[in-house]
Amino acid sequence: MTMTISDLTARPGAWLAVGTDEGPVVSSRIRLARNVRDVAFPGWAGVEECDRLWRRLCPALEQVPSLQVATSLSMGDLSELDKEILFERHLISREHAGKGKGSGLVFRDDERLSVMVNEEDCLRLQGMQPGMKLRSIWAEINTLDSEIENCTEYAFSPTLGYLTACPTNLGTGMRASVMLHLPGLVLMNEINPIMKGMAKIGLAVRGLWGEGTEATGNMFQISNQMTLGDSEEQIVKLVEQIAMELVVHEQNARERLMDRRGALVRDHIGRSFGILSNAHLLTSKEAMDLLSGLRLGIDMGILKSVSRRTVDALLLLTQPGHLQKKEEKALKPKDRDRYRASLVRDALNNPPPKRRNRTTAE
Amino acid sequence: MTMTISDLTARPGAWLAVGTDEGPVVSSRIRLARNVRDVAFPGWAGVEECDRLWRRLCPALEQVPSLQVATSLSMGDLSELDKEILFERHLISREHAGKGKGSGLVFRDDERLSVMVNEEDCLRLQGMQPGMKLRSIWAEINTLDSEIENCTEYAFSPTLGYLTACPTNLGTGMRASVMLHLPGLVLMNEINPIMKGMAKIGLAVRGLWGEGTEATGNMFQISNQMTLGDSEEQIVKLVEQIAMELVVHEQNARERLMDRRGALVRDHIGRSFGILSNAHLLTSKEAMDLLSGLRLGIDMGILKSVSRRTVDALLLLTQPGHLQKKEEKALKPKDRDRYRASLVRDALNNPPPKRRNRTTAE
Repeated sequence: MTMTISDLTARPGAWLAVGTDEGPVVSSRIRLARNVRDVAFPGWAGVEECDRLWRRLCPALEQVPSLQVATSLSMGDLSELDKEILFERHLISREHAGKGKGSGLVFRDDERLSVMVNEEDCLRLQGMQPGMKLRSIWAEINTLDSEIENCTEYAFSPTLGYLTACPTNLGTGMRASVMLHLPGLVLMNEINPIMKGMAKIGLAVRGLWGEGTEATGNMFQISNQMTLGDSEEQIVKLVEQIAMELVVHEQNARERLMDRRGALVRDHIGRSFGILSNAHLLTSKEAMDLLSGLRLGIDMGILKSVSRRTVDALLLLTQPGHLQKKEEKALKPKDRDRYRASLVRDALNNPPPKRRNRTTAE
Repeated sequence: MTMTISDLTARPGAWLAVGTDEGPVVSSRIRLARNVRDVAFPGWAGVEECDRLWRRLCPALEQVPSLQVATSLSMGDLSELDKEILFERHLISREHAGKGKGSGLVFRDDERLSVMVNEEDCLRLQGMQPGMKLRSIWAEINTLDSEIENCTEYAFSPTLGYLTACPTNLGTGMRASVMLHLPGLVLMNEINPIMKGMAKIGLAVRGLWGEGTEATGNMFQISNQMTLGDSEEQIVKLVEQIAMELVVHEQNARERLMDRRGALVRDHIGRSFGILSNAHLLTSKEAMDLLSGLRLGIDMGILKSVSRRTVDALLLLTQPGHLQKKEEKALKPKDRDRYRASLVRDALNNPPPKRRNRTTAE
């Protein structure tokens, strides 16, 4: 293991376009569900059987070229807080955070490629990058997939494709998704019909934290529903195309907003900034929603006193896990709200000098 | 006539303790209801009869020593906007603002003494001062009352006292009131039982704009309900005593708030400042409520970047009438909200240099 959880929390995650300017596009992700031949699915296998597989796969994955330099973490060794942080960074699912001995995570130090072992399937490969990057992620994860197959025989059927614990993942086992920030469509009250239309063309819409979560911070994750029938390239192409169309809709909505309801937009952005820079209690949801207002203000050129980098960093640092790691202790929700507000006030009222931000271009 | 409506709007009103520090006490008022012997009450008299009385009383009132230098305004000559401004300055009632020819107002240039002619009664004398000043107002208005009686015979009964259009004003015809700013009791959820208790000791509670209005901006006006039976001095003493008790309750509530819910108080004050200094749309009610937060923050020593003078001035200048007078045109409610927000942002982000504020000590 090369990275610690503290190392992670000191820097932005791979899912946030920190400092880059891709407008409504936040990040892209692809995950592949894979199982090992002649090994039971994790939900069927007992802890010992899972643990045997983890102890066999972990050293193999650590050596896979695409994952260099690799860090491996056993779920059984992690505190609840550490798991929460991995979840907030989109490195593990909520379900995986509930796992213990027998389940694990191996990830490349830049967090852009990772493998969950014994989540719902034996292996869940993930590629994740800020911005609209489905094609390059597909190239990377396809290579990773082949490299893992070199050392492990996958459960594969010539007719059904990759076999998976849940039939909805059969076939390619692929889910390609793009996270979009769509405050313009929300403010114009146009988001619901658009999102309902997604289902008709085979796409699912989820909130920031995956299935069953609401669109906090005006973040919407769209992904393919079908994994069987289409090729991986077709899936990538479909999701990318629809995501690009949503980006156009969003930018169009923002223009119409400024034309027709300029005062409302300025009010929304102004209040978001005013509350964030002066509140002393902030829940996680309110912080996300208000940070969405700042992001919109920066995208539209209305808010000039705050950098996109600051806003993106706060999106992650205000999450409960990251917040508690920074404070180095467990905090009650009320204390978290106070500490979160203080963190945000400091960041917005005392922006760090630009030369200290050196990880990506502003 | 010596003062114009524009002259008035360029300066603070008599009901606001602009720049003075009386904590929860905003202002004190006394009004006396009087009628003229052998003249019909205004609600019974026709317009011509009212006008005859107004034309008889107006020059007489203009000469009354206590009202020097006096300005007189006939309701029939005023625009709706002018009447709205007089109402916002508490110089006339909502009912009087609905009157036209035959009704009028005579006031001393400092607005602290005034007389409405042909409101509900032939004469309504009013004394009004910032701070807890019931006793000195009583002395002033008592003199004014005698001076007017020297030139006009009042309708008076040896058994019932001063006769009034509404029996609830019989006797002394006096209503003494104190306007209090009670955000601490509101935040502690203690205001309702206290206000309910007022009725039991013969006091009425109203909002900022009198009967039937809610307590916008956490402003509560308490006044005597009975006018018959007690002497004027007893009424003044009762209202003053209860107002002082409420001030103690309020200060006690503020201390407990800081002890037990300090973060909540700071959050309330911070958000009030954050929204006011960044919003682009503000309704009159929201502005009042948020300005209440600033007033509390200044009283408690938490908010240092804004002066009490600025907040008190904004309380008046953000009212619809004053706002439109400043803009010199009628504004639709939506435009008022935008203009109001702009006025408040400017005042809070660019405080005027202190040397320009010369009317009272800071």
